[in-house]
Amino acid sequence: MTTPVTPLTNHRLLLRAYLDGRSTAGVFEVDAVAVPALSSGTFLIRIECLSLDPAMRTWSSATPGRGVAAPLGSVMRAYAVGLVAESAHPDYAIGDCVVGPFGLQEWHLSDGSDVRMRPSPVPTQLSVTLGSVGHIGLSALIGLTEIARVKPGDTVLVSSAAGAVGSQAGQIAKLLGCRTIGVAGGPEKVALCLDVYGFDAAIDYRASTDLAADIALAAPEGIDVFFDNVGGHTLDAVVPLMNEHGRITICGTISIDSKRPGTGPRWERMILDRQLSIQGFLQSHYEGDVPALLARLHTWSSAGQLVLREDVTIGVPSAPEAIERLLNGNNLGKALIRIDRSTE
Amino acid sequence: MTTPVTPLTNHRLLLRAYLDGRSTAGVFEVDAVAVPALSSGTFLIRIECLSLDPAMRTWSSATPGRGVAAPLGSVMRAYAVGLVAESAHPDYAIGDCVVGPFGLQEWHLSDGSDVRMRPSPVPTQLSVTLGSVGHIGLSALIGLTEIARVKPGDTVLVSSAAGAVGSQAGQIAKLLGCRTIGVAGGPEKVALCLDVYGFDAAIDYRASTDLAADIALAAPEGIDVFFDNVGGHTLDAVVPLMNEHGRITICGTISIDSKRPGTGPRWERMILDRQLSIQGFLQSHYEGDVPALLARLHTWSSAGQLVLREDVTIGVPSAPEAIERLLNGNNLGKALIRIDRSTE
Repeated sequence: MTTPVTPLTNHRLLLRAYLDGRSTAGVFEVDAVAVPALSSGTFLIRIECLSLDPAMRTWSSATPGRGVAAPLGSVMRAYAVGLVAESAHPDYAIGDCVVGPFGLQEWHLSDGSDVRMRPSPVPTQLSVTLGSVGHIGLSALIGLTEIARVKPGDTVLVSSAAGAVGSQAGQIAKLLGCRTIGVAGGPEKVALCLDVYGFDAAIDYRASTDLAADIALAAPEGIDVFFDNVGGHTLDAVVPLMNEHGRITICGTISIDSKRPGTGPRWERMILDRQLSIQGFLQSHYEGDVPALLARLHTWSSAGQLVLREDVTIGVPSAPEAIERLLNGNNLGKALIRIDRSTE
Repeated sequence: MTTPVTPLTNHRLLLRAYLDGRSTAGVFEVDAVAVPALSSGTFLIRIECLSLDPAMRTWSSATPGRGVAAPLGSVMRAYAVGLVAESAHPDYAIGDCVVGPFGLQEWHLSDGSDVRMRPSPVPTQLSVTLGSVGHIGLSALIGLTEIARVKPGDTVLVSSAAGAVGSQAGQIAKLLGCRTIGVAGGPEKVALCLDVYGFDAAIDYRASTDLAADIALAAPEGIDVFFDNVGGHTLDAVVPLMNEHGRITICGTISIDSKRPGTGPRWERMILDRQLSIQGFLQSHYEGDVPALLARLHTWSSAGQLVLREDVTIGVPSAPEAIERLLNGNNLGKALIRIDRSTE
């Protein structure tokens, strides 16, 4: 037990209404409460950086797939990295780095049950634990290796290729000996794909009048693996371009309205004829050897082989606007909230 | 080299027009030609029994998925079992049992390259090599174990459950410790599912006004594995009933018009939320340890644990009508053509 630094003020983002569409107007409210006091078996996390993810659409929805909707009034779910500031827990010491779904706020009192990673030594740049060497890198690596079982020489197509997970998927596929093609929206994102993330080809779907034809041109030998973050019309364009034994990894469906998913072409006949597999996965539910995967990501990231552009917004009060930009695809790089500690 | 039994007449079913729909009128023609003479390195197979399969729809189609259409005038593709009657091949002796795509005819001259199985000793009932211990049993076993990775305790739903592959899938799933539910068309087939193939429950989709509700009633804890032989509206009814990490094996799509597959609900969001996998497979393209799988099927079949009702038609000239019955789901059991040898 150490000298408490409390009382401190904790700014939090509360869910006030369920998200419906892509506007966050009226959905969130920022409040300020006193940081709670420690009790035995708990520790206080000083949050440094928060991750904004497309999954926030689900987390703030009244109908979040199979799970239960978050109660109105609760702190918005978010992954965060922070340092232990006070501890009454035998396993956590001041200065320890912890990562987990600590909520969109500045401080979090934990009993350890929500800690997902304990990076050691503490990384120089804490935000890497929310990106290349965190849930983002894990999504890309699990999707490519555990779900799609990429092989050297495969042609790998990635949608939302300039996005956080997409950019990592492209770089990792390349490191694993694949040819990579990215689909992204707008010239800035296409440039990012080619110049920063090293895709062999990149297609601007906003400028394309025939996405299937443009992808076919970039993939004359067909596609072996499609790492899909969007679903919908992009998926429709890609399925007929898949090679035999092709694998489609559904990592995200940002283009789909979960309440009104709509209709689309029937693929079962093509799935059979070409012996395709289509598999959805959630990184947070993966039950394999996560530490080994993180070690692999750390090696690549430390060597500068796995980079992730960041799109940083300062402070919890700016989060609703930053979330809205993310949901509309207007961010350029991994969306993060950095807590401004300069005034403490 | 043995004394030739030729000249003999070979009745063959020729493809005269491509199949369009489910009527075989005008599609086939029976002809009679002399059995060709042996040359060195060949042997003559006296075909005893032929398999009629839903895949014949593809094999007689002008647009057979990815492959090339069979030339008009060629012998209709069909799996067959027969005995070697004459041999000028060092590896094949008179009396050997051989199975392969020898074509819908009475005699076949082979160089060995189209022999898929050489059951030894010769089974008492040759037709088992076209059923439980042949491509039918293999489809069921590969689909359940290699594709869907069934586990004891899984709830397994099978469509076209009284059909050849479906009936084997139901029995094998049961042998592997699963709970089994069959979907079939009409009271006779439902009775077959329950009384002969041992399904725990069976649903008559023709009598059902709400297939999804009826399946949900039979599977109160959801479905872990769907072994699908039909696609279309049946698949639509089942996807929302799948449990997390559920696996859908696409083994057939008999309900789908390959030229006009149509539209259906978009499943990508549900595939993601529930981490489903949907995978198509063709038994004939399977590259794993087929002899080991056949040995397993043989053990079950010999012990009477794997049965298959047969729907036998006599003679090549009756094949067009039998194929039409199969394509319309009017067969009851594995559709076979037996060659009548009594007049030779």
